[in-house]
Amino acid sequence: MSLDPIRQDLIPFLASYLPPEQHNIENKPFVTLTYAQSIDARISLGPGIRTSISDVETKVMTHYLRYHHDGILIGSGTVLADDPGLNCKWHPDVAESKLSEYSPRPIILDPSQKWRFIGSKMYDLFKNGEGKSPIIVVSEKPQVEEEYIDYLIIDGHQGRIDWKTLVDRLSNEFGIKSIMVEGGAFVINELLLRDDIVDSLIVTVGSTYLGEDGVQVSPKKAISLIDADWWKGKKDSIMAARLVPRTN
Amino acid sequence: MSLDPIRQDLIPFLASYLPPEQHNIENKPFVTLTYAQSIDARISLGPGIRTSISDVETKVMTHYLRYHHDGILIGSGTVLADDPGLNCKWHPDVAESKLSEYSPRPIILDPSQKWRFIGSKMYDLFKNGEGKSPIIVVSEKPQVEEEYIDYLIIDGHQGRIDWKTLVDRLSNEFGIKSIMVEGGAFVINELLLRDDIVDSLIVTVGSTYLGEDGVQVSPKKAISLIDADWWKGKKDSIMAARLVPRTN
Ligand SMILES: NC(=O)c1ccc[n+]([C@@H]2O[C@H](COP(=O)([O-])OP(=O)(O)OC[C@H]3O[C@@H](n4cnc5c(N)ncnc54)[C@H](OP(=O)(O)O)[C@@H]3O)[C@@H](O)[C@H]2O)c1
Ligand SMILES: NC(=O)c1ccc[n+]([C@@H]2O[C@H](COP(=O)([O-])OP(=O)(O)OC[C@H]3O[C@@H](n4cnc5c(N)ncnc54)[C@H](OP(=O)(O)O)[C@@H]3O)[C@@H](O)[C@H]2O)c1
Repeated sequence: MSLDPIRQDLIPFLASYLPPEQHNIENKPFVTLTYAQSIDARISLGPGIRTSISDVETKVMTHYLRYHHDGILIGSGTVLADDPGLNCKWHPDVAESKLSEYSPRPIILDPSQKWRFIGSKMYDLFKNGEGKSPIIVVSEKPQVEEEYIDYLIIDGHQGRIDWKTLVDRLSNEFGIKSIMVEGGAFVINELLLRDDIVDSLIVTVGSTYLGEDGVQVSPKKAISLIDADWWKGKKDSIMAARLVPRTN
Repeated sequence: MSLDPIRQDLIPFLASYLPPEQHNIENKPFVTLTYAQSIDARISLGPGIRTSISDVETKVMTHYLRYHHDGILIGSGTVLADDPGLNCKWHPDVAESKLSEYSPRPIILDPSQKWRFIGSKMYDLFKNGEGKSPIIVVSEKPQVEEEYIDYLIIDGHQGRIDWKTLVDRLSNEFGIKSIMVEGGAFVINELLLRDDIVDSLIVTVGSTYLGEDGVQVSPKKAISLIDADWWKGKKDSIMAARLVPRTN
């Protein structure tokens, strides 16, 4: 698949929501939460059903965002359902040959080690020099370690890994200063409540309804946004915003 | 409350989704489905909780749309939860004194007669000459009829009134040639599956999350839209579209 060119007005629209060039090394990594949903807030037709929501026009944005981040994080649900490649096909010089260099490092939240790298699309891309190998976040040391992978062992409470520990260790141990979180629903719903972790929110809204059986994004409680701005595409709309910092 | 002026670019944006001036008297009434939702497709914080979602900038659109329709329909859930006024405060000449003339006729789907007109905001507006009296759609003749109201008795199957019968009778018996449906969730979810009834869909998306306990709009199954277009406001975005006609 080759990408359409990015619509020029998307670049200034996104600018203030991207990780700053000189992100302070002392800070926690810059975290961007991004996903594509239907009008009825569904990100897939059902658990495990790979679903295309956004238009070609907005799909290129995903790659543009990936270009601007060191790491790209997803949950085990998404890696198992979608077998995603997670590499970056957008580059200002369109120098296709260095895909593996400018692609972000995949970070897979797979505490109970359900997923295998070998045989995946990510593996094929890595082997072809078109993407990086992943960091797998696990809750205990794997009995059998797969080749090329880095394991990040974080012992969570009841299988839940603490987000602050996770982003700090990604920064300290892997030099990852910016992370784009691409899903799925479970991960997004947790992070929507974490204004201490998330710096930017970028949501594509496609002009379709996936219906009540779809996998939905809706946080446990109501949240407000600040600095919200909209970009209007042909079929999709994009909202960029920031979470309101809580004052306690 | 006096309204802000309407943003001028909303007028051409909405034009092709409004009831045509010369709506053919033989046809069923023109039906516009419209509501305001959060990003996570919630139209209120919870059942019975009146919730403000849209910005002043897009709120005026509701009145602009009301101006263009003969009737404004809501379900019993909404009338009981929100005690809405349903009149129209927008007019090209801002001739406030004729509010009751250019306001649409409220149509309340209240088969089991739970709601009372007397004591409602709609009643006060009607009494002040600022709105019309409603048509109440009921499944049997009321034992006690309230003053000023028209009752439309439609005997539904298991309390469900057939939409085609309803719109045809509103047209034939009350001369209502265009209906704006303003909610709530139950009514919208039913009508999203009725491309034979609905002519236009206009959804305001506010930049907020109401959270998983909110009342959500999501139809029973996935549906596609055609002629989708977006308008970008300061805090909200508006999608206008049409339902895909089924070919069976
Ligand atoms: N449209 C889009 O933009 C988009 C993007 C991505 C995904 N999706 C869709 O989303 C669906 C998948 O969503 P999902 O909710 O099932 O899965 P998910 O969010 O990708 O993954 C959830 C899993 O990740 C692990 N996890 C999440 N947070 C954790 C934490 N704090 N600590 C430890 N582990 C954590 C857990 O794994 P364990 O259960 O193994 O402990 C959890 O069950 C798929 O249908 C996919 O197609 C859509
Ligand atoms: N943000 C917005 O744009 C917006 C707009 C409107 C409402 N709302 C919110 O939506 C919520 C109310 O939604 P809701 O789903 O509870 O109520 P609703 O859709 O307003 O009303 C549902 C009721 O209407 C009657 N009804 C609907 N379809 C019918 C049919 N085909 N035949 C006969 N009766 C029919 C039934 O009444 P019976 O049960 O009496 O039989 C049904 O229970 C409130 O929280 C309100 O604030 C938000």
